[in-house]
Amino acid sequence: MIDASGCPLCAQEGGVPVLRTPLYRVIRAEEADFPAFYRVVWNEHVAEWTDLVPAHRSLLMQTVAKVETVLREALRPTKINLASLGNVVPHLHWHVIARFDWDSHFPQPVWGAPQRVVVPPAVSRLAVPLEVLDARIAAALAEAVSA
Amino acid sequence: MIDASGCPLCAQEGGVPVLRTPLYRVIRAEEADFPAFYRVVWNEHVAEWTDLVPAHRSLLMQTVAKVETVLREALRPTKINLASLGNVVPHLHWHVIARFDWDSHFPQPVWGAPQRVVVPPAVSRLAVPLEVLDARIAAALAEAVSA
Repeated sequence: MIDASGCPLCAQEGGVPVLRTPLYRVIRAEEADFPAFYRVVWNEHVAEWTDLVPAHRSLLMQTVAKVETVLREALRPTKINLASLGNVVPHLHWHVIARFDWDSHFPQPVWGAPQRVVVPPAVSRLAVPLEVLDARIAAALAEAVSA
Repeated sequence: MIDASGCPLCAQEGGVPVLRTPLYRVIRAEEADFPAFYRVVWNEHVAEWTDLVPAHRSLLMQTVAKVETVLREALRPTKINLASLGNVVPHLHWHVIARFDWDSHFPQPVWGAPQRVVVPPAVSRLAVPLEVLDARIAAALAEAVSA
């Protein structure tokens, strides 16, 4: 376990910034094999989802749902993978990953064994560019934040 | 992708039954390396969490939170791991796993590479027997279901 003082998600954004609110932020992980890989990060350093009060748990999951919805509509992935693990970085964050039957690890989790080599790069196979995807996620979330 | 007709979570309970309601069930996966491994399974065959209406998404996550809370209180795990993947069995289910710094894969996800051989068996290291854990989870959930 590491405490907040040595925590990479306290010290840094953790990826490409998509949206930041006072309570949470959404970033895009930069994983070449899984380009449509986002993280919803709780800004405060807490380890577990149930460390949050129920209203904040719900807010976090509604954010996860909005990211999932944009990914499904924009990319038509084979599957969405959601996870909150934090074994290495115990600062609460949810992984939201669009998976495709052609990706390097499918049907294994992204943390599992590779299944194939993907050529050309995965990002070139997505239906929309990552910048467009980021903007759509930010817009979907900004609507909720301003409501 | 497999459809409902060939789905193992439609055909079978999927593990040791802990609690069943009309909408969802909780089962204990029988994984020797990760004995405190539960799944919250939506009974209807849907693939994605956002296939559910928001009230049902919330009900499912509140169930996940209750399982997580019992595991934390009973076992004091190093970390809780939550995930909804479904790449192999695309029938909506949430994994709720108590992880320990001594377990076979920590800090890797349970789907990652083993890190060590654990002797004696993991189950013997838990603070309470699995039957007691099952009963505590069932009791915590039954309270909510009857409310």
